[in-house]
Amino acid sequence: MKFSATQITSQQAMSYARQMLNTYPHHSRIDAGVLAAAIDALSDCVQACTADVDADLSESDLADMVKCIRLCLHCTDVCAATLGVVSRPAEYDANVTKPLVEACVAICKSCGDECERHAHMQAHCRVCGEACRRCEQACRELLAAIT
Amino acid sequence: MKFSATQITSQQAMSYARQMLNTYPHHSRIDAGVLAAAIDALSDCVQACTADVDADLSESDLADMVKCIRLCLHCTDVCAATLGVVSRPAEYDANVTKPLVEACVAICKSCGDECERHAHMQAHCRVCGEACRRCEQACRELLAAIT
Amino acid sequence: MKFSATQITSQQAMSYARQMLNTYPHHSRIDAGVLAAAIDALSDCVQACTADVDADLSESDLADMVKCIRLCLHCTDVCAATLGVVSRPAEYDANVTKPLVEACVAICKSCGDECERHAHMQAHCRVCGEACRRCEQACRELLAAIT
Amino acid sequence: MKFSATQITSQQAMSYARQMLNTYPHHSRIDAGVLAAAIDALSDCVQACTADVDADLSESDLADMVKCIRLCLHCTDVCAATLGVVSRPAEYDANVTKPLVEACVAICKSCGDECERHAHMQAHCRVCGEACRRCEQACRELLAAIT
Repeated sequence: MKFSATQITSQQAMSYARQMLNTYPHHSRIDAGVLAAAIDALSDCVQACTADVDADLSESDLADMVKCIRLCLHCTDVCAATLGVVSRPAEYDANVTKPLVEACVAICKSCGDECERHAHMQAHCRVCGEACRRCEQACRELLAAIT
Repeated sequence: MKFSATQITSQQAMSYARQMLNTYPHHSRIDAGVLAAAIDALSDCVQACTADVDADLSESDLADMVKCIRLCLHCTDVCAATLGVVSRPAEYDANVTKPLVEACVAICKSCGDECERHAHMQAHCRVCGEACRRCEQACRELLAAIT
Repeated sequence: MKFSATQITSQQAMSYARQMLNTYPHHSRIDAGVLAAAIDALSDCVQACTADVDADLSESDLADMVKCIRLCLHCTDVCAATLGVVSRPAEYDANVTKPLVEACVAICKSCGDECERHAHMQAHCRVCGEACRRCEQACRELLAAIT
Repeated sequence: MKFSATQITSQQAMSYARQMLNTYPHHSRIDAGVLAAAIDALSDCVQACTADVDADLSESDLADMVKCIRLCLHCTDVCAATLGVVSRPAEYDANVTKPLVEACVAICKSCGDECERHAHMQAHCRVCGEACRRCEQACRELLAAIT
């Protein structure tokens, strides 16, 4: 249960993405810190967007939440695929990874913008918007590292 | 069991992707025939690549199959995400869909090339290579329709 | 484009799931016809439920569609995972596959029931409900074959 | 970048799963702490198993890694689906969630056992095995909370 601050030790504080990269038998061309940060941010964004769809569907002003729901669904799918591809760095191909991460940046940007529009009313959209912003930023840094 | 030719009727022959688009309450800017063909090809490619990984792992010349396995895993993830995004056309954004479909074309091309290299030895790679080629082609047609 | 009846040949009529099983180097304990039918039905159900969520979100009586949207989202996730696991039959474990397919039967039943409730008003729910019913049935037959 | 111990603050230490549940507008029957712990463990397990497949494929004793690769692929699919379903608690149905989480416990157990078998040789399998064990445990606690 890593969400309890008192339970965090330096061991638990290192994400599995980072630990896996530290033990990876294949030499990657991408900086491990940038890659692990992207994997963690993608994973968080999948969590947040998945939950935000369900939370949005519980709101009374449903018609106003439709765009947010749709963008969260797209964001979940694109982040999950990007998470898969960048977590398997051995067979790396810029022609695949670059446009995929670009698609990820674009949907995290749109989804983050839309969540922010609801942030003053819906706390779950504020949290989800933060996850999208961090993921957008981590993917931009990954893009800079791979091109 | 739609794979038995004798059981196919015109009703069953229309894919669910096509039937769903025919009943879709939202007007899409993308030609329904092109979109349904892409969705079907993406779905077939996910099926074939998923199965091909397991089949590859059963071969005796495992070291020669590693690249094929890795490309099939990437292809499954990218095709599944693309399938999700293009199946929800209402909140369409070219900045997301275009690079995503481009990533899909690139991985279907690489994966199809690698499967073809094994096609004379492994029949499952021949079948999977065909699914990749059709998906690459269907995604190229989708790209032409959305840009 | 397998949705056009005139374009179907016996070659095209055989699904990739069936073709992959026909070329599979590993001997499976499960009947190939039952397994291929389940894989095809799962694949169709993923397609239909994904599209139905977007279609539901376009309806004016949104509050009445919330349950349908939520069940379609669950159904998509469970069917996609079941599709993956049963498409890799080599490392088969009844302790995993049996409860997974049972979860799939349960969500296809609930989702099919809810879609049917809307079928007279929304044609997309009628189509999606059919895909759920077929998938529920195909998974029941798979369950009977694996236990 | 939550993997650096020095960068962790109490704010960052709370996972997005926990933050989303804290802001959730729907009352859930399941304890939020147990649920958030399960979501985090599922997310970590997806990360670790995805990366472990790629790492396994880089090992020289490939034939000995085949079972581990196959179990990691199953584990990724089942954990990802379970993550999706339990992250949308509003439309909760024990007939779906219970067998799904049971399938998750079973695959995390098998995959953790197999990873442990390789742990003395492959550090990535040791890390992945830990993620599987924690996920198995978190899912057992979730099962106890939902039945």
